[in-house]
Amino acid sequence: MSERSLRGKTAIAGIGETTYYKHGQSPHSEFKLCLEAVVNACADAGISPHEVDGFASYGDDRSDAGHLAAALGIKELKFSNMFWGGGGGGVCGAIGNAAAAVATGMADCVVAFRSLAQGQYRRYGRSSAAAQLSGDDSFVVPYGVMSPAQRFAMKVTRFMHDHGIHQNALRAISLACYHHAQTNPNAVMRGRPLDEEKYDHSRWIVEPFFHLFDCCQENDGAAAVVVVSAERARQLRQKPAYIMACAQGSDTRSAAPVHNMPNYASSHFGQLGPRLYQMAKMTPADMGIIECYENFTGGVLMSLVEHGLVKPEEANDVLVKDNLIAPDGRLPLNTSGGNLAECYMHGLELVHDAVRQIRGVAINQVKNNDTAIIMGGPMVTPVSSLILGSEATL
Amino acid sequence: MSERSLRGKTAIAGIGETTYYKHGQSPHSEFKLCLEAVVNACADAGISPHEVDGFASYGDDRSDAGHLAAALGIKELKFSNMFWGGGGGGVCGAIGNAAAAVATGMADCVVAFRSLAQGQYRRYGRSSAAAQLSGDDSFVVPYGVMSPAQRFAMKVTRFMHDHGIHQNALRAISLACYHHAQTNPNAVMRGRPLDEEKYDHSRWIVEPFFHLFDCCQENDGAAAVVVVSAERARQLRQKPAYIMACAQGSDTRSAAPVHNMPNYASSHFGQLGPRLYQMAKMTPADMGIIECYENFTGGVLMSLVEHGLVKPEEANDVLVKDNLIAPDGRLPLNTSGGNLAECYMHGLELVHDAVRQIRGVAINQVKNNDTAIIMGGPMVTPVSSLILGSEATL
Repeated sequence: MSERSLRGKTAIAGIGETTYYKHGQSPHSEFKLCLEAVVNACADAGISPHEVDGFASYGDDRSDAGHLAAALGIKELKFSNMFWGGGGGGVCGAIGNAAAAVATGMADCVVAFRSLAQGQYRRYGRSSAAAQLSGDDSFVVPYGVMSPAQRFAMKVTRFMHDHGIHQNALRAISLACYHHAQTNPNAVMRGRPLDEEKYDHSRWIVEPFFHLFDCCQENDGAAAVVVVSAERARQLRQKPAYIMACAQGSDTRSAAPVHNMPNYASSHFGQLGPRLYQMAKMTPADMGIIECYENFTGGVLMSLVEHGLVKPEEANDVLVKDNLIAPDGRLPLNTSGGNLAECYMHGLELVHDAVRQIRGVAINQVKNNDTAIIMGGPMVTPVSSLILGSEATL
Repeated sequence: MSERSLRGKTAIAGIGETTYYKHGQSPHSEFKLCLEAVVNACADAGISPHEVDGFASYGDDRSDAGHLAAALGIKELKFSNMFWGGGGGGVCGAIGNAAAAVATGMADCVVAFRSLAQGQYRRYGRSSAAAQLSGDDSFVVPYGVMSPAQRFAMKVTRFMHDHGIHQNALRAISLACYHHAQTNPNAVMRGRPLDEEKYDHSRWIVEPFFHLFDCCQENDGAAAVVVVSAERARQLRQKPAYIMACAQGSDTRSAAPVHNMPNYASSHFGQLGPRLYQMAKMTPADMGIIECYENFTGGVLMSLVEHGLVKPEEANDVLVKDNLIAPDGRLPLNTSGGNLAECYMHGLELVHDAVRQIRGVAINQVKNNDTAIIMGGPMVTPVSSLILGSEATL
């Protein structure tokens, strides 16, 4: 009986993206952006798009697998999968689902992707404009808690209060993302550097902790990764980024919007983190590259702590800009600029830079580049995380 | 390196269902029905619902994993997955996705389910009442092709024309389903037997082939199956129904509603079937129990042929009632009554009876009960199929 694990069985063999645009600025349809990202990811891997036989996505992506297969001329579609719930928190789960399909032989070459042209559609996660409220909204909207930033800020405020963590920790996260974006030609925020003073004087989005620069951009664009078996990856053009582990899920009473959780100040990674490391047979100390979904900086803080990368009592000391930037930082964070400053591609751009780091070809290349952890968005559950490794980590 | 396969790694260890109702007759909410089915499936397996750590569904089920986990008191949710696209055709895929999660160690005990209380919501798959048409609808609705029955009847008519298959083949399928339902206390159509005359004189839904009794019911209710590792299944109360293979997908140019496929008369199982048998290391001749999604009898005809169970040139001779009924028929079909006559639980009720057959406790028990094939709905793509086996088939 083989071990029940994803460890090292599959790899990311190609990554592809479109130009990244500000919200509503894409000249192309969401579907066309998606096709372009898939074609680019295949070119990067050195395969024909006709070799793709599955698609996995998350956050209710609107470019469906059947139409993609038809448009790409794929002869046989073997897998079509949606991470259920979780918004951007599903980014790592979508890749895990692709890996599971390949590892179990249901498909051979699965593309996980995200495509966004939000000017053409209603924004994801936007509060309802309907005259009637239903579901979770009815518990919070009447009290003025309407936006994702408001909802999540309440958890973050409690977390920071519980552990005595100061605003400077959030500021350091934002500064690191903007720092990395300045050398990245793909970054939407390239040419718009951020410093302490600019951050401190930026307007509040949600008091007392979320400034403008604590919140992600809104963007158009698409990104895609090609997942194949480890054997196939070794035959292809690029150095494989092996999928060492994926964990998905949530803690107890996971319907987060209702805010009635036993552990209110949770980003749902508390139980998931240990499972992730166990599958990878690694520890937090092994993680050389840190990629963490930042719809809001507060989520990064909570994710880092709940993945065991930062002790809460040390957060004020560890989360300073010098520790968080490539090439020498102890915890090089969001090395291409992330959701805040590269592009809010719902976290898939974080996976891309982790792959480039493992290949050794990133713009802001770190030194300790054998292993990357990617943490999906902690805003709504379920959430997901991923560990990628090099040949040396197998 | 372990083999990339699902074969024998997981099993269905429990099945549970609610009372099955006619459309709109459920006294309970869709969510409550779902909880009841999950709790019943766990009781059948002999486990606590607290052991469940994942959920998989299909056809945009509205009872989401996070709320289910909260309501059931599940401490840690590890997997939440939606078969993407395909409507009822995803039934086997949802179970395959659950199996892949368990086989790769992402979760340990995943429930795949379907819950329907359609009186409380808009019907699945109903044509839009909107003033504007969009997407695929805009290619067919202006020409009067509005209902699923109409759309699918066009393909079936072509298929029957191409192969010279007569109405009697469809009638035999319908008669077999109604025959099996008459001994099944759970069947909504129990007590309403069907014979040749009643079938022949029933009204047309879509001429020239779909009578009233060629079309499935619409129902309320819920059904759930518990998927665990093969090792765990052997420790539990019931005889395991091993998941020997799952295949998902579609043929070339799979966006079926547009009707512009190279092989128009396809139910998309032509490429999938061989993959299914290859993973199971079996042939069509090994299949003792035949469970086939029947939103319309024509889909059963096409599915049986494309899975290699009936040769098209023999369909008129093979598809006669005596061949299709338990206990002695050569191809015992939909042995609990299926979508037509037990309950249209979007095919999950077919999986339940396959599990009971393998256990040897079905109401209409067949003799050759080591292996069951379940074929998901061929109406919209992607589709999916499943092979279940007993200990003897491993």
